[in-house]
Amino acid sequence: MRALLARLSAMGDPVVEDPVAKELLRLRMSIDNMDAALVHLLAERFKITQQVGELKAAHGLPPADPAREAQQIERLRALAEDAKLDPEFAEKFLNFVVAEVVRHHEATMSKNASSAAKAYVSHQSGGNEHLSRP
Amino acid sequence: MRALLARLSAMGDPVVEDPVAKELLRLRMSIDNMDAALVHLLAERFKITQQVGELKAAHGLPPADPAREAQQIERLRALAEDAKLDPEFAEKFLNFVVAEVVRHHEATMSKNASSAAKAYVSHQSGGNEHLSRP
Repeated sequence: MRALLARLSAMGDPVVEDPVAKELLRLRMSIDNMDAALVHLLAERFKITQQVGELKAAHGLPPADPAREAQQIERLRALAEDAKLDPEFAEKFLNFVVAEVVRHHEATMSKNASSAAKAYVSHQSGGNEHLSRP
Repeated sequence: MRALLARLSAMGDPVVEDPVAKELLRLRMSIDNMDAALVHLLAERFKITQQVGELKAAHGLPPADPAREAQQIERLRALAEDAKLDPEFAEKFLNFVVAEVVRHHEATMSKNASSAAKAYVSHQSGGNEHLSRP
């Protein structure tokens, strides 16, 4: 067990000689690159869904759209199968992201409703500041 | 409300004239492109974590690694802030993905333990088939 811990702690060193630690480090560097890409893609995705939320709020459309979500799930499951990703996980992932999006849309709508009610209040508090977040 | 429903249902038509429906369709096409990219990136990420899981299982390393996860969370939160993504969401996202990865690693380890115990059983049932899934 001490050898294993040494192996893991060696990964913090600039030169890693242990072949297992070296391989683990190599794999983790790829995971880190992919995670950076995922985070940046998610940031862009939330920019788009924020635009969707503003469009829906401006036109009184409901934040959730079950028919659209069913299409997305079906499509993502098919893409996942082609990519050898567990379709169940792809569906859970979409639900996870959509839940966050709906939360944002509802916040946008309630903020808009509250803004309409308080239209006489000055805009000194920063207006749509929270909308600049995903 | 009927107008809104017509607007949404118009999105299934090849030619969309309503400007709001058109804009919503444009945004949704971008979301769909990003979701395809996300699914393919996640598929690659799970291929790598599967290799990590196999490496860990082969060398008796524990599936979870709290120190590594803390580093990942710190790094992803910083990347998220730069990308204007809610750091809380980035952390939740990582936890969501890591939970799935740990589940796979534990399955790999228990499968390996079970394989060792049943080494005399013929391999006709497909061996590591479930490992080819994420």
